[in-house]
Amino acid sequence: MKDAGQVQVHWHEHAVSREERERLNGHRGCVVWFTGLSACGKSTIANLVDHKLHARGVHSFVLDGDNIRHGLNASPAILRQNHHSDEFARRFGLGFSAEDREENIRRIGAVAKLFCEAGLVAITAFISPYRADRDRVRQSLAPGDFIEVFVDTPIEVCEARDPKGLYKKARAGQLKGFTGIDDPYEPPLRPEIVLRGGDHPPEVLAEQVLAYLQATGKIPPK
Amino acid sequence: MKDAGQVQVHWHEHAVSREERERLNGHRGCVVWFTGLSACGKSTIANLVDHKLHARGVHSFVLDGDNIRHGLNASPAILRQNHHSDEFARRFGLGFSAEDREENIRRIGAVAKLFCEAGLVAITAFISPYRADRDRVRQSLAPGDFIEVFVDTPIEVCEARDPKGLYKKARAGQLKGFTGIDDPYEPPLRPEIVLRGGDHPPEVLAEQVLAYLQATGKIPPK
Repeated sequence: MKDAGQVQVHWHEHAVSREERERLNGHRGCVVWFTGLSACGKSTIANLVDHKLHARGVHSFVLDGDNIRHGLNASPAILRQNHHSDEFARRFGLGFSAEDREENIRRIGAVAKLFCEAGLVAITAFISPYRADRDRVRQSLAPGDFIEVFVDTPIEVCEARDPKGLYKKARAGQLKGFTGIDDPYEPPLRPEIVLRGGDHPPEVLAEQVLAYLQATGKIPPK
Repeated sequence: MKDAGQVQVHWHEHAVSREERERLNGHRGCVVWFTGLSACGKSTIANLVDHKLHARGVHSFVLDGDNIRHGLNASPAILRQNHHSDEFARRFGLGFSAEDREENIRRIGAVAKLFCEAGLVAITAFISPYRADRDRVRQSLAPGDFIEVFVDTPIEVCEARDPKGLYKKARAGQLKGFTGIDDPYEPPLRPEIVLRGGDHPPEVLAEQVLAYLQATGKIPPK
Protein backbone atom coordinates (compact mmCIF):
# COMPACT_ATOMS: atom_id res chain seq x y z
CA MET A 1 0.00 0.00 0.00
CA LYS A 2 1.23 3.49 -0.79
CA ASP A 3 1.96 5.99 1.92
CA ALA A 4 -1.29 7.83 2.68
CA GLY A 5 0.39 11.23 2.75
CA GLN A 6 1.80 10.76 -0.73
CA VAL A 7 -1.50 9.53 -2.10
CA GLN A 8 -3.27 12.54 -0.61
CA VAL A 9 -0.81 15.05 -2.03
CA HIS A 10 -0.97 13.33 -5.38
CA TRP A 11 -4.74 13.49 -5.59
CA HIS A 12 -5.02 17.00 -4.25
CA GLU A 13 -2.76 18.06 -7.10
CA HIS A 14 -5.14 16.38 -9.51
CA ALA A 15 -8.33 17.69 -7.88
CA VAL A 16 -10.85 18.94 -10.42
CA SER A 17 -10.08 22.60 -11.09
CA ARG A 18 -12.64 25.35 -11.38
CA GLU A 19 -11.73 25.74 -15.05
CA GLU A 20 -12.48 22.05 -15.67
CA ARG A 21 -15.86 22.42 -13.96
CA GLU A 22 -16.62 25.50 -16.02
CA ARG A 23 -15.66 23.66 -19.21
CA LEU A 24 -18.10 20.85 -18.36
CA ASN A 25 -20.82 23.44 -17.63
CA GLY A 26 -20.18 25.51 -20.76
CA HIS A 27 -20.07 28.82 -18.89
CA ARG A 28 -18.26 30.62 -16.08
CA GLY A 29 -19.02 30.53 -12.37
CA CYS A 30 -19.80 33.82 -10.62
CA VAL A 31 -21.82 35.40 -7.82
CA VAL A 32 -24.75 37.64 -8.77
CA TRP A 33 -25.46 39.51 -5.55
CA PHE A 34 -28.81 41.31 -5.37
CA THR A 35 -29.19 44.02 -2.74
CA GLY A 36 -32.01 46.41 -1.97
CA LEU A 37 -34.89 47.25 0.35
CA SER A 38 -37.59 44.83 1.41
CA ALA A 39 -40.15 44.44 -1.43
CA CYS A 40 -37.84 46.16 -3.95
CA GLY A 41 -38.16 43.14 -6.24
CA LYS A 42 -34.90 41.29 -5.45
CA SER A 43 -36.35 37.82 -5.03
CA THR A 44 -38.71 38.10 -7.99
CA ILE A 45 -35.97 39.29 -10.34
CA ALA A 46 -33.44 36.77 -8.94
CA ASN A 47 -35.80 33.85 -9.57
CA LEU A 48 -36.58 35.17 -13.02
CA VAL A 49 -32.85 35.40 -13.84
CA ASP A 50 -32.42 31.83 -12.56
CA HIS A 51 -35.33 30.68 -14.71
CA LYS A 52 -33.95 32.35 -17.84
CA LEU A 53 -30.43 31.04 -17.24
CA HIS A 54 -31.76 27.52 -16.76
CA ALA A 55 -33.73 27.79 -20.00
CA ARG A 56 -30.44 28.64 -21.73
CA GLY A 57 -28.69 25.61 -20.22
CA VAL A 58 -26.73 27.63 -17.67
CA HIS A 59 -26.25 25.99 -14.24
CA SER A 60 -27.45 28.48 -11.65
CA PHE A 61 -28.92 28.45 -8.17
CA VAL A 62 -30.72 30.99 -5.99
CA LEU A 63 -29.87 31.49 -2.33
CA ASP A 64 -32.68 33.37 -0.64
CA GLY A 65 -34.59 33.53 2.61
CA ASP A 66 -36.60 30.45 1.71
CA ASN A 67 -33.65 28.06 1.61
CA ILE A 68 -31.25 29.87 3.98
CA ARG A 69 -33.33 30.98 6.96
CA HIS A 70 -34.66 27.47 7.63
CA GLY A 71 -31.29 25.76 7.24
CA LEU A 72 -27.84 27.32 7.25
CA ASN A 73 -28.94 30.51 9.03
CA ALA A 74 -31.78 29.17 11.14
CA SER A 75 -33.22 31.07 14.08
CA PRO A 76 -32.67 29.89 17.66
CA ALA A 77 -36.26 28.53 17.66
CA ILE A 78 -35.64 26.36 14.59
CA LEU A 79 -32.36 25.06 16.05
CA ARG A 80 -34.23 24.02 19.21
CA GLN A 81 -36.87 22.28 17.07
CA ASN A 82 -34.05 20.34 15.44
CA HIS A 83 -32.93 19.07 18.86
CA HIS A 84 -30.02 21.39 19.48
CA SER A 85 -29.63 22.56 23.10
CA ASP A 86 -30.86 25.96 24.35
CA GLU A 87 -27.29 27.12 24.86
CA PHE A 88 -26.33 26.03 21.35
CA ALA A 89 -29.39 27.74 19.83
CA ARG A 90 -28.64 30.99 21.64
CA ARG A 91 -25.04 31.07 20.45
CA PHE A 92 -25.45 30.02 16.82
CA GLY A 93 -29.06 30.86 15.96
CA LEU A 94 -29.50 34.08 14.01
CA GLY A 95 -31.95 36.92 14.53
CA PHE A 96 -31.92 40.39 13.01
CA SER A 97 -29.48 42.36 15.20
CA ALA A 98 -26.58 44.11 13.42
CA GLU A 99 -24.19 41.34 14.52
CA ASP A 100 -26.60 38.60 13.44
CA ARG A 101 -27.08 40.29 10.05
CA GLU A 102 -23.31 40.48 9.68
CA GLU A 103 -22.99 36.73 10.30
CA ASN A 104 -26.02 36.02 8.08
CA ILE A 105 -24.34 37.75 5.14
CA ARG A 106 -20.92 36.29 5.97
CA ARG A 107 -22.24 32.71 5.77
CA ILE A 108 -24.23 33.40 2.61
CA GLY A 109 -21.14 34.94 1.01
CA ALA A 110 -19.07 31.89 1.89
CA VAL A 111 -21.67 29.55 0.39
CA ALA A 112 -22.06 31.66 -2.76
CA LYS A 113 -18.29 31.45 -3.18
CA LEU A 114 -18.45 27.64 -2.99
CA PHE A 115 -21.14 27.57 -5.70
CA CYS A 116 -18.99 29.90 -7.81
CA GLU A 117 -16.00 27.56 -7.37
CA ALA A 118 -18.26 24.69 -8.41
CA GLY A 119 -18.75 26.58 -11.69
CA LEU A 120 -22.32 27.74 -11.09
CA VAL A 121 -23.91 31.15 -11.36
CA ALA A 122 -24.78 31.70 -7.69
CA ILE A 123 -27.60 34.21 -7.30
CA THR A 124 -28.29 35.71 -3.87
CA ALA A 125 -31.38 37.70 -2.92
CA PHE A 126 -31.05 39.31 0.51
CA ILE A 127 -31.54 42.90 1.65
CA SER A 128 -27.86 42.86 2.77
CA PRO A 129 -28.16 46.46 3.95
CA TYR A 130 -24.60 47.08 5.21
CA ARG A 131 -21.91 48.09 2.73
CA ALA A 132 -19.06 46.63 4.80
CA ASP A 133 -20.69 43.18 4.82
CA ARG A 134 -21.18 43.15 1.05
CA ASP A 135 -17.67 44.49 0.44
CA ARG A 136 -16.25 41.70 2.58
CA VAL A 137 -17.90 39.16 0.27
CA ARG A 138 -16.54 41.02 -2.76
CA GLN A 139 -13.03 40.92 -1.26
CA SER A 140 -13.29 37.17 -0.68
CA LEU A 141 -13.76 36.58 -4.41
CA ALA A 142 -11.49 37.05 -7.41
CA PRO A 143 -11.99 40.31 -9.39
CA GLY A 144 -14.95 39.92 -11.72
CA ASP A 145 -16.51 37.06 -9.77
CA PHE A 146 -18.71 39.35 -7.67
CA ILE A 147 -21.48 41.09 -9.57
CA GLU A 148 -23.37 43.47 -7.30
CA VAL A 149 -26.89 44.20 -8.49
CA PHE A 150 -28.50 47.16 -6.76
CA VAL A 151 -32.26 47.00 -7.09
CA ASP A 152 -32.88 50.71 -6.72
CA THR A 153 -36.60 50.90 -6.06
CA PRO A 154 -37.81 54.02 -4.20
CA ILE A 155 -38.90 53.22 -0.67
CA GLU A 156 -42.33 54.74 -1.43
CA VAL A 157 -42.84 52.10 -4.12
CA CYS A 158 -41.62 49.28 -1.84
CA GLU A 159 -43.89 50.51 0.95
CA ALA A 160 -46.89 50.73 -1.38
CA ARG A 161 -46.30 47.11 -2.46
CA ASP A 162 -45.59 45.75 1.05
CA PRO A 163 -46.69 42.18 0.13
CA LYS A 164 -46.08 40.84 3.65
CA GLY A 165 -47.30 43.91 5.54
CA LEU A 166 -43.84 44.43 7.03
CA TYR A 167 -43.59 48.18 6.37
CA LYS A 168 -46.96 48.64 8.02
CA LYS A 169 -45.79 46.74 11.10
CA ALA A 170 -42.50 48.64 11.17
CA ARG A 171 -44.29 52.00 10.94
CA ALA A 172 -46.54 50.89 13.79
CA GLY A 173 -43.46 50.06 15.88
CA GLN A 174 -44.30 46.35 15.93
CA LEU A 175 -41.10 45.45 14.03
CA LYS A 176 -37.81 46.87 15.32
CA GLY A 177 -34.68 47.42 13.21
CA PHE A 178 -36.51 47.34 9.89
CA THR A 179 -34.29 48.39 6.98
CA GLY A 180 -35.25 51.79 5.59
CA ILE A 181 -37.47 52.65 8.55
CA ASP A 182 -35.40 52.42 11.74
CA ASP A 183 -32.30 50.65 10.43
CA PRO A 184 -30.07 52.05 7.65
CA TYR A 185 -29.80 50.81 4.08
CA GLU A 186 -26.38 51.63 2.65
CA PRO A 187 -26.59 51.63 -1.15
CA PRO A 188 -23.60 50.26 -3.11
CA LEU A 189 -21.11 52.92 -4.27
CA ARG A 190 -20.01 51.15 -7.46
CA PRO A 191 -22.43 48.30 -8.18
CA GLU A 192 -21.90 46.39 -11.43
CA ILE A 193 -25.60 46.72 -12.26
CA VAL A 194 -28.33 49.14 -11.16
CA LEU A 195 -31.94 48.10 -11.77
CA ARG A 196 -34.69 50.72 -11.58
CA GLY A 197 -37.27 48.60 -9.77
CA GLY A 198 -39.91 51.33 -9.77
CA ASP A 199 -39.71 52.00 -13.51
CA HIS A 200 -39.65 48.62 -15.23
CA PRO A 201 -41.29 45.21 -14.79
CA PRO A 202 -39.17 42.28 -13.47
CA GLU A 203 -39.03 40.72 -16.95
CA VAL A 204 -37.14 43.73 -18.36
CA LEU A 205 -34.86 43.99 -15.33
CA ALA A 206 -33.96 40.29 -15.47
CA GLU A 207 -32.96 40.69 -19.12
CA GLN A 208 -30.60 43.51 -18.10
CA VAL A 209 -28.79 41.07 -15.80
CA LEU A 210 -28.56 38.42 -18.53
CA ALA A 211 -27.23 41.00 -20.98
CA TYR A 212 -24.49 41.90 -18.47
CA LEU A 213 -23.55 38.24 -17.94
CA GLN A 214 -23.34 37.71 -21.68
CA ALA A 215 -21.40 40.93 -22.36
CA THR A 216 -18.81 40.02 -19.72
CA GLY A 217 -18.39 36.50 -21.07
CA LYS A 218 -19.83 34.71 -18.03
CA ILE A 219 -22.39 32.96 -20.23
CA PRO A 220 -22.26 32.24 -23.97
CA PRO A 221 -24.47 34.10 -26.48
CA LYS A 222 -27.94 32.71 -26.98
CA MET B 1 -47.14 47.62 -13.28
CA LYS B 2 -48.35 44.44 -11.64
CA ASP B 3 -48.71 44.12 -7.91
CA ALA B 4 -45.34 43.01 -6.54
CA GLY B 5 -46.87 40.38 -4.30
CA GLN B 6 -48.64 38.74 -7.22
CA VAL B 7 -45.53 38.79 -9.36
CA GLN B 8 -43.53 37.21 -6.54
CA VAL B 9 -46.05 34.44 -5.94
CA HIS B 10 -46.27 33.83 -9.65
CA TRP B 11 -42.55 33.45 -10.10
CA HIS B 12 -42.03 31.44 -6.98
CA GLU B 13 -44.52 28.96 -8.35
CA HIS B 14 -42.50 28.80 -11.55
CA ALA B 15 -39.11 28.65 -9.83
CA VAL B 16 -36.81 26.08 -11.37
CA SER B 17 -37.52 22.76 -9.68
CA ARG B 18 -34.91 20.29 -8.53
CA GLU B 19 -36.15 17.84 -11.17
CA GLU B 20 -35.58 20.41 -13.91
CA ARG B 21 -32.05 21.03 -12.65
CA GLU B 22 -31.39 17.29 -12.56
CA ARG B 23 -32.71 16.94 -16.10
CA LEU B 24 -30.29 19.62 -17.31
CA ASN B 25 -27.43 17.87 -15.47
CA GLY B 26 -28.30 14.38 -16.69
CA HIS B 27 -28.12 12.82 -13.21
CA ARG B 28 -29.61 13.09 -9.72
CA GLY B 29 -28.49 15.32 -6.88
CA CYS B 30 -27.45 13.68 -3.61
CA VAL B 31 -25.11 14.00 -0.63
CA VAL B 32 -22.23 11.54 -0.34
CA TRP B 33 -21.15 11.92 3.27
CA PHE B 34 -17.75 10.45 4.15
CA THR B 35 -17.02 9.82 7.82
CA GLY B 36 -14.07 8.24 9.58
CA LEU B 37 -10.95 8.85 11.67
CA SER B 38 -8.24 11.34 10.81
CA ALA B 39 -5.98 9.89 8.07
CA CYS B 40 -8.47 7.09 7.29
CA GLY B 41 -8.46 8.17 3.63
CA LYS B 42 -11.69 10.23 3.49
CA SER B 43 -10.32 13.23 1.65
CA THR B 44 -8.24 11.17 -0.78
CA ILE B 45 -11.16 8.92 -1.71
CA ALA B 46 -13.61 11.86 -1.83
CA ASN B 47 -11.43 13.76 -4.28
CA LEU B 48 -10.95 10.64 -6.35
CA VAL B 49 -14.73 10.09 -6.51
CA ASP B 50 -15.14 13.74 -7.55
CA HIS B 51 -12.49 13.31 -10.24
CA LYS B 52 -14.10 10.15 -11.62
CA LEU B 53 -17.59 11.68 -11.58
CA HIS B 54 -16.34 14.76 -13.40
CA ALA B 55 -14.67 12.56 -16.03
CA ARG B 56 -18.09 10.96 -16.59
CA GLY B 57 -19.78 14.34 -17.01
CA VAL B 58 -21.41 14.30 -13.58
CA HIS B 59 -21.63 17.65 -11.76
CA SER B 60 -20.10 17.14 -8.33
CA PHE B 61 -18.29 19.17 -5.69
CA VAL B 62 -16.22 18.35 -2.62
CA LEU B 63 -16.71 20.14 0.68
CA ASP B 64 -13.69 19.53 2.88
CA GLY B 65 -11.47 21.26 5.41
CA ASP B 66 -9.64 23.16 2.66
CA ASN B 67 -12.67 25.11 1.46
CA ILE B 68 -14.77 25.14 4.66
CA ARG B 69 -12.40 25.93 7.51
CA HIS B 70 -11.11 29.11 5.83
CA GLY B 71 -14.55 30.38 4.84
CA LEU B 72 -17.93 29.22 6.10
CA ASN B 73 -16.57 27.67 9.31
CA ALA B 74 -13.58 29.90 9.93
CA SER B 75 -11.82 30.07 13.28
CA PRO B 76 -12.05 33.16 15.49
CA ALA B 77 -8.53 34.13 14.34
CA ILE B 78 -9.50 34.10 10.66
CA LEU B 79 -12.67 36.10 11.38
CA ARG B 80 -10.54 38.75 13.11
CA GLN B 81 -8.17 38.81 10.12
CA ASN B 82 -11.20 39.50 7.94
CA HIS B 83 -12.02 42.58 10.04
CA HIS B 84 -14.80 41.16 12.19
CA SER B 85 -14.78 42.36 15.81
CA ASP B 86 -13.35 40.33 18.70
CA GLU B 87 -16.80 39.80 20.15
CA PHE B 88 -18.13 38.64 16.77
CA ALA B 89 -15.18 36.28 16.28
CA ARG B 90 -15.66 34.75 19.73
CA ARG B 91 -19.35 34.08 19.15
CA PHE B 92 -19.33 32.77 15.58
CA GLY B 93 -15.78 31.48 15.05
CA LEU B 94 -15.43 27.71 15.35
CA GLY B 95 -12.86 25.66 17.20
CA PHE B 96 -12.92 21.97 18.06
CA SER B 97 -15.07 21.74 21.20
CA ALA B 98 -18.06 19.37 21.09
CA GLU B 99 -20.43 22.34 20.56
CA ASP B 100 -18.22 23.82 17.85
CA ARG B 101 -18.01 20.46 16.08
CA GLU B 102 -21.80 20.19 16.25
CA GLU B 103 -22.17 23.60 14.56
CA ASN B 104 -19.39 22.75 12.08
CA ILE B 105 -21.29 19.68 10.90
CA ARG B 106 -24.66 21.46 11.03
CA ARG B 107 -23.49 24.18 8.63
CA ILE B 108 -21.78 21.69 6.32
CA GLY B 109 -24.95 19.61 6.25
CA ALA B 110 -27.03 22.66 5.35
CA VAL B 111 -24.66 23.57 2.50
CA ALA B 112 -24.51 19.99 1.20
CA LYS B 113 -28.31 20.04 1.10
CA LEU B 114 -28.26 23.22 -1.02
CA PHE B 115 -25.84 21.59 -3.48
CA CYS B 116 -28.11 18.54 -3.60
CA GLU B 117 -31.11 20.77 -4.34
CA ALA B 118 -29.06 22.40 -7.08
CA GLY B 119 -28.82 18.93 -8.64
CA LEU B 120 -25.18 18.23 -7.82
CA VAL B 121 -23.52 15.27 -6.17
CA ALA B 122 -22.28 16.97 -2.99
CA ILE B 123 -19.36 15.09 -1.47
CA THR B 124 -18.30 15.88 2.10
CA ALA B 125 -15.07 14.73 3.74
CA PHE B 126 -15.01 15.46 7.46
CA ILE B 127 -14.31 13.24 10.46
CA SER B 128 -17.85 14.03 11.68
CA PRO B 129 -17.33 11.83 14.74
CA TYR B 130 -20.73 12.18 16.44
CA ARG B 131 -23.62 10.00 15.29
CA ALA B 132 -26.30 12.48 16.38
CA ASP B 133 -24.78 15.23 14.20
CA ARG B 134 -24.66 12.99 11.12
CA ASP B 135 -28.16 11.67 11.76
CA ARG B 136 -29.47 15.24 11.95
CA VAL B 137 -28.12 15.87 8.45
CA ARG B 138 -29.71 12.63 7.25
CA GLN B 139 -33.06 13.69 8.74
CA SER B 140 -32.88 17.05 6.96
CA LEU B 141 -32.77 15.32 3.57
CA ALA B 142 -35.31 13.22 1.67
CA PRO B 143 -34.90 9.42 1.96
CA GLY B 144 -32.19 8.26 -0.42
CA ASP B 145 -30.53 11.67 -0.70
CA PHE B 146 -28.07 10.99 2.13
CA ILE B 147 -25.44 8.38 1.37
CA GLU B 148 -23.27 7.75 4.41
CA VAL B 149 -19.86 6.34 3.54
CA PHE B 150 -18.01 4.92 6.53
CA VAL B 151 -14.29 4.74 5.82
CA ASP B 152 -13.53 1.94 8.24
CA THR B 153 -9.75 2.06 8.52
CA PRO B 154 -8.28 0.60 11.73
CA ILE B 155 -6.86 3.29 13.98
CA GLU B 156 -3.48 1.51 13.94
CA VAL B 157 -3.32 2.03 10.18
CA CYS B 158 -4.39 5.71 10.47
CA GLU B 159 -1.83 6.28 13.21
CA ALA B 160 0.93 4.61 11.18
CA ARG B 161 0.14 6.92 8.23
CA ASP B 162 -0.26 10.11 10.31
CA PRO B 163 0.63 12.41 7.38
CA LYS B 164 0.33 15.60 9.46
CA GLY B 165 1.82 14.18 12.68
CA LEU B 166 -1.47 14.76 14.51
CA TYR B 167 -1.68 11.36 16.20
CA LYS B 168 1.86 11.82 17.47
CA LYS B 169 0.93 15.21 18.94
CA ALA B 170 -2.29 13.83 20.43
CA ARG B 171 -0.42 10.91 22.06
CA ALA B 172 2.06 13.41 23.49
CA GLY B 173 -0.82 15.42 24.95
CA GLN B 174 -0.09 18.43 22.73
CA LEU B 175 -3.48 18.14 20.98
CA LYS B 176 -6.58 17.87 23.16
CA GLY B 177 -9.88 16.31 22.09
CA PHE B 178 -8.40 14.35 19.20
CA THR B 179 -10.86 11.87 17.71
CA GLY B 180 -9.95 8.26 18.48
CA ILE B 181 -7.42 9.24 21.16
CA ASP B 182 -9.18 11.38 23.78
CA ASP B 183 -12.45 12.13 21.99
CA PRO B 184 -14.88 9.45 20.80
CA TYR B 185 -15.54 8.34 17.23
CA GLU B 186 -19.06 6.94 16.92
CA PRO B 187 -19.23 4.69 13.84
CA PRO B 188 -22.43 4.73 11.76
CA LEU B 189 -24.93 2.00 12.64
CA ARG B 190 -26.38 1.58 9.14
CA PRO B 191 -24.12 3.34 6.64
CA GLU B 192 -25.04 3.00 2.97
CA ILE B 193 -21.42 2.11 2.13
CA VAL B 194 -18.53 0.73 4.19
CA LEU B 195 -15.04 1.09 2.75
CA ARG B 196 -12.20 -0.99 4.18
CA GLY B 197 -9.52 1.69 4.12
CA GLY B 198 -6.81 -0.59 5.48
CA ASP B 199 -7.35 -3.32 2.91
CA HIS B 200 -7.69 -1.62 -0.47
CA PRO B 201 -6.12 1.35 -2.27
CA PRO B 202 -8.19 4.54 -2.76
CA GLU B 203 -8.71 3.74 -6.46
CA VAL B 204 -10.63 0.55 -5.62
CA LEU B 205 -12.60 2.22 -2.82
CA ALA B 206 -13.62 5.15 -5.03
CA GLU B 207 -14.95 2.70 -7.63
CA GLN B 208 -17.12 1.11 -4.92
CA VAL B 209 -18.78 4.49 -4.34
CA LEU B 210 -19.36 5.03 -8.06
CA ALA B 211 -20.83 1.55 -8.37
CA TYR B 212 -23.29 2.38 -5.58
CA LEU B 213 -24.29 5.67 -7.22
CA GLN B 214 -24.87 3.90 -10.51
CA ALA B 215 -26.76 0.96 -8.97
CA THR B 216 -29.12 3.33 -7.14
CA GLY B 217 -29.77 5.40 -10.26
CA LYS B 218 -28.10 8.58 -9.03
CA ILE B 219 -25.82 8.61 -12.06
CA PRO B 220 -26.33 7.00 -15.48
CA PRO B 221 -24.31 3.94 -16.61
CA LYS B 222 -20.94 4.67 -18.17
